[in-house]
Amino acid sequence: MHKVIYDTDPGVDDAMALLFLHHHQEIDLLGITTVFGNATIETTTRNALFLKREWKIDCPVARGAGETFIPHRPSHEPPVLIHGHDGLGNIGVPETIDLPEDGRPAHRFIVDTIRANPGEVTLVAVGRMTNLAHALKEDPEIVDLVKQVVIMGGAFDCNGNVTPAAEANIHGDPEAADIVFTAKWPVVVVGLDVTMQTVMTNTQLADIRDAAGSSRARLLFDLSQFYIQFYQGRVPDGMVVHDSCAAVYVVAPELFQTRAGAIRVVCGGIADGQTIQKPDGRGFGPSDWDGIVSQTICTGIDAEAVLRLIHDTIVSVKED
Amino acid sequence: MHKVIYDTDPGVDDAMALLFLHHHQEIDLLGITTVFGNATIETTTRNALFLKREWKIDCPVARGAGETFIPHRPSHEPPVLIHGHDGLGNIGVPETIDLPEDGRPAHRFIVDTIRANPGEVTLVAVGRMTNLAHALKEDPEIVDLVKQVVIMGGAFDCNGNVTPAAEANIHGDPEAADIVFTAKWPVVVVGLDVTMQTVMTNTQLADIRDAAGSSRARLLFDLSQFYIQFYQGRVPDGMVVHDSCAAVYVVAPELFQTRAGAIRVVCGGIADGQTIQKPDGRGFGPSDWDGIVSQTICTGIDAEAVLRLIHDTIVSVKED
Repeated sequence: MHKVIYDTDPGVDDAMALLFLHHHQEIDLLGITTVFGNATIETTTRNALFLKREWKIDCPVARGAGETFIPHRPSHEPPVLIHGHDGLGNIGVPETIDLPEDGRPAHRFIVDTIRANPGEVTLVAVGRMTNLAHALKEDPEIVDLVKQVVIMGGAFDCNGNVTPAAEANIHGDPEAADIVFTAKWPVVVVGLDVTMQTVMTNTQLADIRDAAGSSRARLLFDLSQFYIQFYQGRVPDGMVVHDSCAAVYVVAPELFQTRAGAIRVVCGGIADGQTIQKPDGRGFGPSDWDGIVSQTICTGIDAEAVLRLIHDTIVSVKED
Repeated sequence: MHKVIYDTDPGVDDAMALLFLHHHQEIDLLGITTVFGNATIETTTRNALFLKREWKIDCPVARGAGETFIPHRPSHEPPVLIHGHDGLGNIGVPETIDLPEDGRPAHRFIVDTIRANPGEVTLVAVGRMTNLAHALKEDPEIVDLVKQVVIMGGAFDCNGNVTPAAEANIHGDPEAADIVFTAKWPVVVVGLDVTMQTVMTNTQLADIRDAAGSSRARLLFDLSQFYIQFYQGRVPDGMVVHDSCAAVYVVAPELFQTRAGAIRVVCGGIADGQTIQKPDGRGFGPSDWDGIVSQTICTGIDAEAVLRLIHDTIVSVKED
């Protein structure tokens, strides 16, 4: 079993990854921590509670950061054209959800849960890295207690999506991401290099809805439609399932090709938020990557198998 | 005929490209301009004069910049491990060559030559972009008078070579390169994305020497041996012919795949000297690429055909 904390800013593709994590037999979801990004922290936390209620997910939700790790950073507007004004595709999420939050801030929940399960917790982080950076600041020793950190974010041998240089999750808090990537815990980065190849068509999504026959899958289908509209003209009829790729990596790393090497994040300037890896074994002159711990990035993906695993996992639970 | 000014810092692979330009039937070499980089400006200019004398090249040599466009920039040591202390593979180039230089500084020579041949001059620039930036500063109207600017430099969908972010020619003077890429003249960038695939083996180089049977080709073989030593362990037995790729582009652009889009250069920070393109037709948020003229980068190359053309061109002239 993989004990997972899911750090997320739901977010449409966040929702699919959540349902995958909830349904996969080898995953024990210990908690959901929220972060600002696809919407404000109020909205992403409300959405996490909404999905917890609708999908009957039995784990705590802890509210996380509402601004960047360095508070004075200019902030970016939430991408309402992608995830909708409610962060879940404008399906009409209730303004408030009558479920309690975990009382602790997300970074404290992360630290406590790692300490309670030494060597066992996988962090799956698919939003800004702010909560993880705060957890590292609060308790640097967690680097030796975490099993693995799997991140959706960044763009290495390809363009970003927010700017030509930077991907949204990293661009939204570059300093936090640089702290997370350079910390001495094992990080796997699932970035645009592989997620952009992983497009679920609307037909495949309807197949999941029909095969599952559950209200869970119907909700997933409905909340994804606005997002699919956004992707029209960008990818063939369908949606890029960024966050689910990171969730899949936890249980099926063999579906990915990877490359090892130190990772830094550009902070400031025209490339603000860009991720750059120094591949191990290649010679360079002196650089700001020297002496930094080697991490893993994904350079290739078996997209068809990943999409099949998402399908099979979500339809495996049929009861409402 | 392509009227070419060759802006260069010889430099071993610079020498091969020079011999290619000199021997190709469709190229009229109007002048050689020198720049610091692979060695100091004194050494690269001396080497240009040496190659002009040894290879009986009948065109002027104009001395260019010896420091970055912004003078206070920290400078980098010449890469003596790659090109040797003499910049030509430690073959023992005489300290001085008894040939006159063109009296004008390189940027003036460039401006004058473009003005004398409106619409006809192709600049082939394979060192730092400093001379071209100075030419643009002196006479901005040349952007409408140049036929094309073909550059060896940069790294787009791959790592750099000096640092994980930056390629040597751009890293050596980022501000100059940003001026050149964002000017409204047609630029084609031949970067590491394609040059690193273009490896001439030592056997192929010996074939050129033997097939040509000239002292020119013997000198080319001899001065390349030190450079090939450097590349051992980095590429299969041979040398990356970076600069020749740019020279080949002038006469055989059909051997390259390209992508259009605005190019900016990161100036300062950990990614200093990195080149980033915003591909045309892709959507991004607001960025520092907005409103910048679209240029062309090379994303693919028929390396075998490029190497064959270099071979055929250099052996086509047999007399000494």
